[in-house]
Amino acid sequence: MTSRQQPPRTLTIAGSDSGGGAGIQADLKTFTALGTYGLSVITALTSQNTLGVDGVASVEPEFVAQQLRAVVGDIGVDAIKIGMLHNHKVIASVASTLTALFGPRGSPGYPPIVLDPVMFSTSSHVLLDPPSLPALQSQLLPLVQLMTPNIPEAQKLASVDAITDVQGMKAAAREIARLGCAAVLVKGGHLEGETVWDVLYERDGDGEGGEFTVFEHPRVHTKNTHGTGCTQSSAIAAFLAKGKPSVREAIQLATDYVQAALLASFDIGHGSGPLNHLVSILPRALPAPVELDPHPFTNYLIRACAPEWATYTRKHPFVLGLRDGTLPRECFIHFLKQDYIFLMHYARIHALAAYKSFSMEEIDACTDIVKHIIRESKHHIEYCQSWGISLAEFHSTPESGHTVAYTRYVLDTGVSSSLLALRVATAPCLLGYGEVGTWLYSDPGTKREGNDYWPWIEGYAGEDFQLAVTKGRELLEETVRRDPLSARQLEDMVGIFRKATRLEVGFWEQSYVSSGSPPDLATKC
Amino acid sequence: MTSRQQPPRTLTIAGSDSGGGAGIQADLKTFTALGTYGLSVITALTSQNTLGVDGVASVEPEFVAQQLRAVVGDIGVDAIKIGMLHNHKVIASVASTLTALFGPRGSPGYPPIVLDPVMFSTSSHVLLDPPSLPALQSQLLPLVQLMTPNIPEAQKLASVDAITDVQGMKAAAREIARLGCAAVLVKGGHLEGETVWDVLYERDGDGEGGEFTVFEHPRVHTKNTHGTGCTQSSAIAAFLAKGKPSVREAIQLATDYVQAALLASFDIGHGSGPLNHLVSILPRALPAPVELDPHPFTNYLIRACAPEWATYTRKHPFVLGLRDGTLPRECFIHFLKQDYIFLMHYARIHALAAYKSFSMEEIDACTDIVKHIIRESKHHIEYCQSWGISLAEFHSTPESGHTVAYTRYVLDTGVSSSLLALRVATAPCLLGYGEVGTWLYSDPGTKREGNDYWPWIEGYAGEDFQLAVTKGRELLEETVRRDPLSARQLEDMVGIFRKATRLEVGFWEQSYVSSGSPPDLATKC
Repeated sequence: MTSRQQPPRTLTIAGSDSGGGAGIQADLKTFTALGTYGLSVITALTSQNTLGVDGVASVEPEFVAQQLRAVVGDIGVDAIKIGMLHNHKVIASVASTLTALFGPRGSPGYPPIVLDPVMFSTSSHVLLDPPSLPALQSQLLPLVQLMTPNIPEAQKLASVDAITDVQGMKAAAREIARLGCAAVLVKGGHLEGETVWDVLYERDGDGEGGEFTVFEHPRVHTKNTHGTGCTQSSAIAAFLAKGKPSVREAIQLATDYVQAALLASFDIGHGSGPLNHLVSILPRALPAPVELDPHPFTNYLIRACAPEWATYTRKHPFVLGLRDGTLPRECFIHFLKQDYIFLMHYARIHALAAYKSFSMEEIDACTDIVKHIIRESKHHIEYCQSWGISLAEFHSTPESGHTVAYTRYVLDTGVSSSLLALRVATAPCLLGYGEVGTWLYSDPGTKREGNDYWPWIEGYAGEDFQLAVTKGRELLEETVRRDPLSARQLEDMVGIFRKATRLEVGFWEQSYVSSGSPPDLATKC
Repeated sequence: MTSRQQPPRTLTIAGSDSGGGAGIQADLKTFTALGTYGLSVITALTSQNTLGVDGVASVEPEFVAQQLRAVVGDIGVDAIKIGMLHNHKVIASVASTLTALFGPRGSPGYPPIVLDPVMFSTSSHVLLDPPSLPALQSQLLPLVQLMTPNIPEAQKLASVDAITDVQGMKAAAREIARLGCAAVLVKGGHLEGETVWDVLYERDGDGEGGEFTVFEHPRVHTKNTHGTGCTQSSAIAAFLAKGKPSVREAIQLATDYVQAALLASFDIGHGSGPLNHLVSILPRALPAPVELDPHPFTNYLIRACAPEWATYTRKHPFVLGLRDGTLPRECFIHFLKQDYIFLMHYARIHALAAYKSFSMEEIDACTDIVKHIIRESKHHIEYCQSWGISLAEFHSTPESGHTVAYTRYVLDTGVSSSLLALRVATAPCLLGYGEVGTWLYSDPGTKREGNDYWPWIEGYAGEDFQLAVTKGRELLEETVRRDPLSARQLEDMVGIFRKATRLEVGFWEQSYVSSGSPPDLATKC
């Protein structure tokens, strides 16, 4: 169970894009879509949409530092992405605050820092003032693990005229790395062609040599590329925060995410639209189990069938008759005989679950249940004998139509649907008898002394059965936690659970009615 | 297929919380987690963490207006959430800009606006200056559809001393609504008790009377409540943007989201931690189909089994022998005989798929395939007769071990697993023969004149078979689009696809080897 597990903390230090496609907005969307907790230090505000930037409001360098101290001091970070820093004063402020907070790069607890040197927006507004280039090169670069310039940015940073191919990208990457960052990714999207190459250069530990990796991906033809660089660098930071061991692996995963987000991009606004940050996530039909809510799936099933569930576990005259000891003896005997036949099929049902399992552990667990049912059925016979039912009578009892309906419904569900569906079909029996047992056992209104049904109640309230309930419920929750259901699948499961609950109500009913009790007492569900 | 569908556009006009738990950060996380496209107009910056606010930087009212014009003018909005506005000048600027952009409330295209009157943060810093209260009341309230004060805020807005119960909340809600907003939700979390009541008051169209709705939910015991109000109001805006017809319904869904996010909240920082905004989403194992990438599932399966797939569809000597006409005649005859037996089981496989279907349409579609296979099998017999195989020889052919292996593997997959798994097990046959047919038919290197296998190639390249391929692929994509797979389920599907692909390779192999061709030519996969 994922109980209150803290997601990795990812921080963006960048500008704000009111249009939501780039800047801290794209970063926060990326962090969220990749399952991390997003923090942000805003370095400048832009008034911006898909057509471009029409205004910039600066933020005092000291206030940038203050935000950075506030989040790192209290919350901490697992990775940092740095984007637009607007001017050389903000660059200096960020560089000195990072050093004050973490010490020099490589100190214990120093987080991975990815720097996307935003110098131009897609709409070609210059976003850094002229003195920022040397400030970036001398003060910030030595602090970062990875720098991710595109071709025009790499040209400026490496002071080269024109990069036209992978060779040129490699040379520029090595040149930029000399300024002090651990690795450089030069992104080749600005070159022509159907294939895009990105070049990674990682310096050796001793700073002498280094290693190149070339990433290759098909070009996506879309006008909606606003925020591509922001998204890629924050995705790299997110994968590093999530514990990816190498920059190379984080880049590959981030590139896959950006590619998918470009393929799924949509037209919004009149200019260059954003990537689709939502591409990596799905709506959850049901929350995952957490400490404060450990059984969301089974609780949902029961809530969704509340009226049927109440009839089955609380209101049916059969149950009320067990509670106050007034249930006619012949009703209970009818019930016990059919319950034995049910048990035989219940063993088959778990054998089918074993057939539908694909590991020795699971087959073993199912088989244990089958063995348990077989042992219980022997106790059942002894118990029935204590009610005066002979063995001969037992074995000559015909299976009632309703017992056929219930057991064959569950078996057919197992053959025609998934193992989970089979288990959901058996859940009303397990959870319901557990609930009836616990309720009747603990309720002060239940007759104890002189109630012939008290031993039966004790049996279902007992440790042995309650342990089976706990195990069965955990298995259902764990299956759905591991393989979450779509909204439609959840409704299918509700349908199966409801049908099996109704069939349980019918199981009380057949004994109650068939044994001659007044039918007007019988509650239809 | 959801091709480039534009998600609803949701705008937050609020302050920034560097700590990520409240403000526009909480709003953008909520918008993303609920599947909308987030826009933001920043009204003030705070330096903040879980312990509180330690600094505020204001934003010029005119720059707030500029951001608002930039996003509404180009991108447009489907719902707006307004949070902290910091001071009365920003309030005036937002109110006049909204009116300039949209006209008076109720004008065509006027978006739903939810106003969360952030007056105190959870850490009790006052976030609005004194003249803002009258400005909010007189200028902004008349513009909004829903106002969502908590108890202290409702007391200030309604100018009442102390709200201590639901009656007091109702009176305050009605009082606030008089100031001009269409509806008021007074949130009762500040009252004591295990149950929390929220009171909604909606004014009638004529402004005279109104209607109350009381929402009830259990209190969640957690210290991590930072950003609850921000999250709830932005969630309401998101559900309105997504087209929920009533404020009441949007509030209920937003409350469910906030409850789940509180239950799943986690400890981060040293103070009041944030809600878990990620509670409503899941990581996607595979992107959904989009126009630029319509077959992500089947492409993934094929890519994941690239070596086996290449052996099966491109490299096996059986296929190369069909291509240049050199395949020994006895190999092909062996293949044709076993293929007939395969077809019989292939019909059974689709009958099993019909059994596993739960709608007349699906059962009908599966049955059509069975009928199609039966018709094809008759052509198959005629075709075989043209190769000199007699009917008697046909019916006396024993099923080979490999044909048993392949067909029974697929059938067992169908019984033991889901309908999707069964379809994935049949996919290599359908997609692979389609690919072999298309490739051999269109490749200039294929021998046409005098190639005895050319009619066979034409058959699989033909419209009839290719249509079946298209339909089968669409069905697989559609199933996975509707019920997305977890990473583990996707790997299970790859396992099934790979095994069936290997069994297809084995199918070429058995004819190639059994018929006496040199075994060293046979490529093992």
